Amino acid sequence: MQNRADNLTTIAAPATGPGGAISLIRLSGPRAIAITESIFSKPLADAEGYTVHFGTIADGDRLLDEALVSVFRAPRSYTGEDMTEIACHGSSFVTREILSLLVRRGAEPATAGEFTRRAFLNGKLDLSQAEAVADLIASESGAAHRIALNQMRGGYAAELTVLRQKLLHITSLLELELDFSEEDVEFADRSELENLLNDIHTRCRTLAGSFRTGNVLKNGVPVAIAGAPNAGKSTLLNRLLGEERAIVSDIPGTTRDFIEETIVLAGIRFRFIDTAGLRHTEDAAEALGIGRARERIGRAAVVLLLISEPLSAEEAAERIRTLQLSGEQRLIVLLNKNDLWNTVPLSEKLAPKYPVLSISARSGDGTDTLQEMLVHAVADDIPEDTLIVSNIRHYEALIHASEALEAATKGLRTGLSADLISEEIRQVLYHLGTITGEITTDDILGNIFSKFCIGK
Amino acid sequence: MQNRADNLTTIAAPATGPGGAISLIRLSGPRAIAITESIFSKPLADAEGYTVHFGTIADGDRLLDEALVSVFRAPRSYTGEDMTEIACHGSSFVTREILSLLVRRGAEPATAGEFTRRAFLNGKLDLSQAEAVADLIASESGAAHRIALNQMRGGYAAELTVLRQKLLHITSLLELELDFSEEDVEFADRSELENLLNDIHTRCRTLAGSFRTGNVLKNGVPVAIAGAPNAGKSTLLNRLLGEERAIVSDIPGTTRDFIEETIVLAGIRFRFIDTAGLRHTEDAAEALGIGRARERIGRAAVVLLLISEPLSAEEAAERIRTLQLSGEQRLIVLLNKNDLWNTVPLSEKLAPKYPVLSISARSGDGTDTLQEMLVHAVADDIPEDTLIVSNIRHYEALIHASEALEAATKGLRTGLSADLISEEIRQVLYHLGTITGEITTDDILGNIFSKFCIGK
Repeated sequence: MQNRADNLTTIAAPATGPGGAISLIRLSGPRAIAITESIFSKPLADAEGYTVHFGTIADGDRLLDEALVSVFRAPRSYTGEDMTEIACHGSSFVTREILSLLVRRGAEPATAGEFTRRAFLNGKLDLSQAEAVADLIASESGAAHRIALNQMRGGYAAELTVLRQKLLHITSLLELELDFSEEDVEFADRSELENLLNDIHTRCRTLAGSFRTGNVLKNGVPVAIAGAPNAGKSTLLNRLLGEERAIVSDIPGTTRDFIEETIVLAGIRFRFIDTAGLRHTEDAAEALGIGRARERIGRAAVVLLLISEPLSAEEAAERIRTLQLSGEQRLIVLLNKNDLWNTVPLSEKLAPKYPVLSISARSGDGTDTLQEMLVHAVADDIPEDTLIVSNIRHYEALIHASEALEAATKGLRTGLSADLISEEIRQVLYHLGTITGEITTDDILGNIFSKFCIGK
Repeated sequence: MQNRADNLTTIAAPATGPGGAISLIRLSGPRAIAITESIFSKPLADAEGYTVHFGTIADGDRLLDEALVSVFRAPRSYTGEDMTEIACHGSSFVTREILSLLVRRGAEPATAGEFTRRAFLNGKLDLSQAEAVADLIASESGAAHRIALNQMRGGYAAELTVLRQKLLHITSLLELELDFSEEDVEFADRSELENLLNDIHTRCRTLAGSFRTGNVLKNGVPVAIAGAPNAGKSTLLNRLLGEERAIVSDIPGTTRDFIEETIVLAGIRFRFIDTAGLRHTEDAAEALGIGRARERIGRAAVVLLLISEPLSAEEAAERIRTLQLSGEQRLIVLLNKNDLWNTVPLSEKLAPKYPVLSISARSGDGTDTLQEMLVHAVADDIPEDTLIVSNIRHYEALIHASEALEAATKGLRTGLSADLISEEIRQVLYHLGTITGEITTDDILGNIFSKFCIGK
């Protein structure tokens, strides 16, 4: 485990977005305080940590701004290094001028996530906590925020670290046996080892099992509205978005590759998947389009099937079958009230088997109930107090660890030799270690921190 | 003069733009520290000003974030009131949650510019300095930044305040005479008064005279490229923008109603005015379009006339006359080198009378020289060490003050009665007072601070 950043440079970057009243510029590294002092009107060399200083920023005779400078001293700072934060006026011009001045005085522009990377290398955060920082900044709903914050505050990584330490201890005993292989001794208690492997395996499986939920909560619950053409899918979508649109659109500055229709209900974000094009057809080209719509429905966690015409219970059931839903997908059948039919009889026939709701897409009648049903369809999957994995890298590591755990347990039971069992356990140790960051490679770190924003 | 904010509420607002690693939330008012403490894990009641505290933000049991809180105590703060700044993770969700929690604990959402308004009402800034804060935040070029910073640091308002105080003193003597009007005494030295009025008048005229330059530097120098269709105007514009476009586009987050092509040269922003449509025509509808193009040329501070065909010196002079430029507009004649003609003979004929440059819009040959000429065309107007007025409100007040000064001086010379002279001087005092904020109305304040961003 690397405990110290081997990097002795001092880095600088803006830490706030453009367009505000105030800009924050952060510095971290051995010369952070000296470089800041060199452009500031007040002495900082003897400033205590956690103090703020008001003065002017100047490039020689050229005044740049009035600013507040906060000083933090190693190791009591975010990165564990000496740090300063310069709060200047929120002009992009001023921010740029100050940054370029800092660079001329010896600071290096920070790369994405470099502050958090240093915090990790200096032992201020484990890797899973560092990753949670990025998730926290990106969080747009209560559920995503809660998952990220739990993870940042320690989360499952702390528990995995303890289990891994125990496993490491028992494995070293097991490997000690190899040095005495001719003497047929057992330093490592086999039943203790098997119990520990079982404990870890159970934990890994539970955590890996929470990933589907975690991923959905972090990235939003994909919802598809299926139904025949002109069933009123767009009208229903607009109804659902209508009152909530304001809530969605006051989330500023989120960067997305494409704009999706989303609503946040009870802290959970729902993403509506475009299923335009789903209809019955003989036309080959159109069939292709339908294939795509099917594929999208396949990706939904919740499917709303909208029926707007008088169907028999059998016809309705056939429509549901056509959706080819998997066991994990939730279905809600919506009977769209209009002049063409009375929805009550069909509702009564379907209700015992399927969750059914009569609504009016046009008047909005029933959409409140639908929103509640959407929340329940997902909230039932969310364990209240359990930790949830929302990070795909962690999920994959847990899956790999589980496989190795299974092999090791099987090896123990079948009396496999200590060196082969030890090899499997090394795999477990490796994969768990990549989650907490006890095992890292430059590749893993580069990949993780490149997803951060500059200044974090 | 109001010296204290009569408002005893505590206000809160985000002070940073969205999309960064960190969000700052500011509070100001008598309960700023208590309200912040009520959601923070650390005690703040006894915290000294200019200290930073690390802890967690929670809504009862519900953890919201880890944050740094800076504490400032009245009167040593930006607003002059008790203040806190909460630096939390830059998630719009987290920021919103914390703000809404603060409001539930008794803070009021701050209106645009309310922090600076309080700073003004508490005597921390004069009005012209407060206005400069908004200009500083909006500044996008070195020149605009310099003007705003000068004004924020005191600028001409300090000088006007001193002159106004002197005038106030002598006027009170003058008005004392009115109480003794039957006794024909002169408390106010007439020649001293006349000298003072002259001094103030000179200063007002100089400052008002700097407005054209100040306005141009603050908002960018409007440049029009005129010329016959297909003369290569667009090619030239792209050439000019080409190398500089990167510099312009890395100014993030500036909000404009429309995107203009701009370049910053030597710290001065040049805005290129669209003059597409300027051509000779008999068509009535097209003539209307030309009328608009003319109007745009009329608004330019610098006009580039691009000639791409063999013209005689007389024809070229005729084109220049057609532009109907005013004495204040700068002209640069550009002879566009191409296969059709040799630019040298015409250049030699025009050069004694007009600034002429042979360029190649296509190859970019000569654009460096053109950029230098653009800078010189403007920089010559910028007095190096003088203060510049860039605020139209100040400009109008200076013009009104000048008019009243003229009337007062004339009255003095023609032996007008003290009460009439005093009336004119009251006008001068009023208009100068509105610049520094010694005289304000709710209308003036409302108008000024509504242009600020929230959180400033």
